[in-house]
Amino acid sequence: MNQPATPASARIADIPAYMQDLGRRARAASRLLARADSAAKNRTLTAIAAALRAGSAALLAANAKDVAAARAAGRDAAFVDRLTLSPKTIESMASGVEQVASLPDPVGEISEVRERPNGMKVGRMRVPLGVIGIIYESRPNVTADAAALCMKSGNACILRGGSESVHSNQAIARCVHRGLAEAGLPEDAVQVVETPDRSAVGELLRMNKYVDIIVPRGGKSLIERIMAESRIPMIKHLDGVCHVYIDDRADPELAVKIADNAKTQRYGTCNAMETLLVHEAVAPKLLPRIAAELAAKGVELRGDDAARGLVASMKPATEDDWYAEYLAPILAVRVVHDMDEAMDHIAKYGSQHSEAIITTDTARADRFLREVDSSSVMVNASTRLADGFEYGLGAEIGISTDKLHARGPVGLEGLTSQKYVVFGSGQVRE
Amino acid sequence: MNQPATPASARIADIPAYMQDLGRRARAASRLLARADSAAKNRTLTAIAAALRAGSAALLAANAKDVAAARAAGRDAAFVDRLTLSPKTIESMASGVEQVASLPDPVGEISEVRERPNGMKVGRMRVPLGVIGIIYESRPNVTADAAALCMKSGNACILRGGSESVHSNQAIARCVHRGLAEAGLPEDAVQVVETPDRSAVGELLRMNKYVDIIVPRGGKSLIERIMAESRIPMIKHLDGVCHVYIDDRADPELAVKIADNAKTQRYGTCNAMETLLVHEAVAPKLLPRIAAELAAKGVELRGDDAARGLVASMKPATEDDWYAEYLAPILAVRVVHDMDEAMDHIAKYGSQHSEAIITTDTARADRFLREVDSSSVMVNASTRLADGFEYGLGAEIGISTDKLHARGPVGLEGLTSQKYVVFGSGQVRE
Repeated sequence: MNQPATPASARIADIPAYMQDLGRRARAASRLLARADSAAKNRTLTAIAAALRAGSAALLAANAKDVAAARAAGRDAAFVDRLTLSPKTIESMASGVEQVASLPDPVGEISEVRERPNGMKVGRMRVPLGVIGIIYESRPNVTADAAALCMKSGNACILRGGSESVHSNQAIARCVHRGLAEAGLPEDAVQVVETPDRSAVGELLRMNKYVDIIVPRGGKSLIERIMAESRIPMIKHLDGVCHVYIDDRADPELAVKIADNAKTQRYGTCNAMETLLVHEAVAPKLLPRIAAELAAKGVELRGDDAARGLVASMKPATEDDWYAEYLAPILAVRVVHDMDEAMDHIAKYGSQHSEAIITTDTARADRFLREVDSSSVMVNASTRLADGFEYGLGAEIGISTDKLHARGPVGLEGLTSQKYVVFGSGQVRE
Repeated sequence: MNQPATPASARIADIPAYMQDLGRRARAASRLLARADSAAKNRTLTAIAAALRAGSAALLAANAKDVAAARAAGRDAAFVDRLTLSPKTIESMASGVEQVASLPDPVGEISEVRERPNGMKVGRMRVPLGVIGIIYESRPNVTADAAALCMKSGNACILRGGSESVHSNQAIARCVHRGLAEAGLPEDAVQVVETPDRSAVGELLRMNKYVDIIVPRGGKSLIERIMAESRIPMIKHLDGVCHVYIDDRADPELAVKIADNAKTQRYGTCNAMETLLVHEAVAPKLLPRIAAELAAKGVELRGDDAARGLVASMKPATEDDWYAEYLAPILAVRVVHDMDEAMDHIAKYGSQHSEAIITTDTARADRFLREVDSSSVMVNASTRLADGFEYGLGAEIGISTDKLHARGPVGLEGLTSQKYVVFGSGQVRE
């Protein structure tokens, strides 16, 4: 596994056999990792951070190969930017790993213990899931980040980064393995797929014997491809078509501030607002103000007839706009008759990611919170705050819009399961 | 939907279209049911119980048709027994539904609320999953039971019972619909598949647009078939190869009592012990006693060489015996060198259902609890107690041996999800 002289891809002839072997080793290591105590896991994370810092020169050299190849292949600036490591990003990787070490260890925690009439005590113990497969694009920092989160939650992992980052990922993997070895945990606990061959992904998605859950991290096309192929459950979201609904009982200053932040604080994120719904009673007063604010930042507005009647510069929205995740300075705007119409719109066009209501009416806020079926439902706050760090999870492996298992931002807890534990004193079934 | 004059099967030509329509209606009803308050749901359940009692004669008449057909088809006595309704089983269905009404409503409960540094409060609200598909064998009582659990947890459901119970299920469905109508909830919330055509099951398992989770209730062959076909997540277990490990620090009386109960209290259940593992230091004393006790109840023992050396009447166990879920008066027995060997055996041959250790040593108990990767891990208690009612869940829709979402016995909570709710006062992302 260490220091391959030639690119691994040249040495791996039989991809299915190679992946099965990776899976088998990850599964075996997962049993040992599940038993590791917090001290051993934290020692490992600290050692990984040190290895990343110490290996900085080697990391940059490996990364330079990937960057040169990506440039030669004509990849765009944004792609190359995400791929490129610098002393600063390496330091931020290392400190990120240390931060995971400082988080509380969810594994082994026993909760909800109740004594039954027969005297036995029944509780639930938090345990690792087992083996986690992570599939991501050519962003080498994810390698360290994902390995740290899986390790802290007691899981083995199989990491498959974008094929253009293969040298960087292998260099990071060497630091991770050094950390594991130093702390006495099995190197097999973190498997980095060494081939850029795409068929390795297909193989990974079918290894349900060895992989308990897949976490895809990347754009919609990556996730769609994985969803179509995977036979293993996933923690994922496909779209973030997030809504802000401004109620007629909204505080106007607060409404303007949140609408602005939800759209413009960062355009390319899954929790950015894509459609603004405004109650017809306050639209004449608020919509022109919000439109002016957004227009000044270069946001293009696309509205329904009522919205365009209030803001002349607005383009007409088509049916497609209501479904759109722009990830760009574009916003769809609709004037609604009441909160029910807003909730119907969200139910029809939304992606169950994050939605906010701006209102001072607690009864309406309660109804919105209860009835909107999204992974995060917010009152008087920006959808941009739907995030693992902002929620206090300390870390985030992704956001799930599915209802089973973890929902919303997923931190360490979402990488664990709970089993029942029973403390008896001779109880039998009568 | 009400009072079909002819069997439904005769009227349904296009099964896919019929099932899609069922799904669409269930999905629409699920939004209304998710909003229903506890009082409305409990009123419905009470009305269903009353309708079952009032409709007793009609239920028995419909059931008689199914029973006659099953007898004519040469079904065995156990099958006919599970299919047959009586005034007593109808009363027990009705009181079962009333019992679900008396359980606390999980929906809407907000927990884990924390205030973040920016002043916003983040919590988690329990919400229904949406639409639950339940596939079961010809046991009409499951129709009422499953409908009640789904309703109480705010979920719409699509119920597909064994084709031989179609008349009974339709008669029960009429009582359920009467209860829904009386309480003002949509009848579409409980959909009973009216055709015995098996292709309806295949269709149901592919309707991931309309169905959020599938709960198969039945034998291994049913569940295997569903697993192979389903594109929808499931709450299920396939096998219950449950182990009891008697440690050398076990209380001998307690060990004998629990081993006996775990095997013989009821043979055909998924939480019955199928393999007994005994520490070599206590095997000479305990195994002959346990063997005598079990032999007296007609249990056949199949052991490894060491076990057979202690109990001459024991047959030899083959490799297959360690994997076997007998569901019968047969027990595999193995003498182990220590707890690690017992845990290795469980990891290799077990089904991650329920395992127990008998010991007075708390350090060993702790290790066993932590390291055995099963949905229930027990100390000094019979595996037969791994059950929703015994655990105090008040009800059980099934037992899950999967690690995602619900694990172990699944009650109302397992039919719900948690979304994040955020209470802000103008917070934005900085």
